[in-house]
Amino acid sequence: MTLNVTLMLTTVPDAATADRLTADALAGRLAACVTRMGAVRSQYHWQGKIESADEIQLIFKTSEARAVDLEQFIQTQHPYDTPEILSWQVAASNAYGQWVDAETQRPIHV
Amino acid sequence: MTLNVTLMLTTVPDAATADRLTADALAGRLAACVTRMGAVRSQYHWQGKIESADEIQLIFKTSEARAVDLEQFIQTQHPYDTPEILSWQVAASNAYGQWVDAETQRPIHV
Amino acid sequence: MTLNVTLMLTTVPDAATADRLTADALAGRLAACVTRMGAVRSQYHWQGKIESADEIQLIFKTSEARAVDLEQFIQTQHPYDTPEILSWQVAASNAYGQWVDAETQRPIHV
Repeated sequence: MTLNVTLMLTTVPDAATADRLTADALAGRLAACVTRMGAVRSQYHWQGKIESADEIQLIFKTSEARAVDLEQFIQTQHPYDTPEILSWQVAASNAYGQWVDAETQRPIHV
Repeated sequence: MTLNVTLMLTTVPDAATADRLTADALAGRLAACVTRMGAVRSQYHWQGKIESADEIQLIFKTSEARAVDLEQFIQTQHPYDTPEILSWQVAASNAYGQWVDAETQRPIHV
Repeated sequence: MTLNVTLMLTTVPDAATADRLTADALAGRLAACVTRMGAVRSQYHWQGKIESADEIQLIFKTSEARAVDLEQFIQTQHPYDTPEILSWQVAASNAYGQWVDAETQRPIHV
């Protein structure tokens, strides 16, 4: 396991947002794969109160080279002012890591 | 992405335990956010047999500075003798990382 | 938190595959615990198109010493040509880390 892949996690409020972020990230080759987890419930501090929200969690799989672009995309397109965008490096099986690298090559004409 | 956030994962046997750990961790500012994943099934070795349990997975988002306190809290409050408590550092988008830091400041009077 | 545990993630197409991989990995002491997440939906680039698949996500908890064997097992037994096999190190609570180490000792006769 020598190739690294970046996992980037965010949570969105609804399926329409999940659909849009997923489609646009894939179309722009900002990620090779997006996994949508089932519904999650987030509870958190916000402006002095404890809030609760039902959300959808997305995990993007991208190359280290594209992670900065993907983060900027999520930050810009996400409906929240302070979206949760968390990322970390993982070791990938060789063929999977090569696939992620190949599928996240920056398009020549953008 | 320069700020780090600690993800801490545990699994609990039921919703009542998930509610209690979530509420108490947030009230004590041991985490800024707790995400409850849908039901998961754990299969594992235990005392010479392979067991299966339906559980709820919780992911706490906290600062590196509060991670030790959060781990101790989970260890003490968790109904299992050997709870699964796993943590790792992730890179956070700036505003989210700052929010986690701010919301997990140790209270002045405890 | 001083002991490390390896989390290894894969996605499989159906419950029968999840059952088989889980049972065989545990029987071979390639993992101490396997957590099956609820259904996930993966969307990804494949051979020039964007595909979508409903899958089951599995997270294996193993020791660093056994991670290579577990990866090889998944690679060999997985029905996909290019399975997603991603792994990373996490810090474990002491008792849990010791349990993972103990339960993933290589069997004497294999």
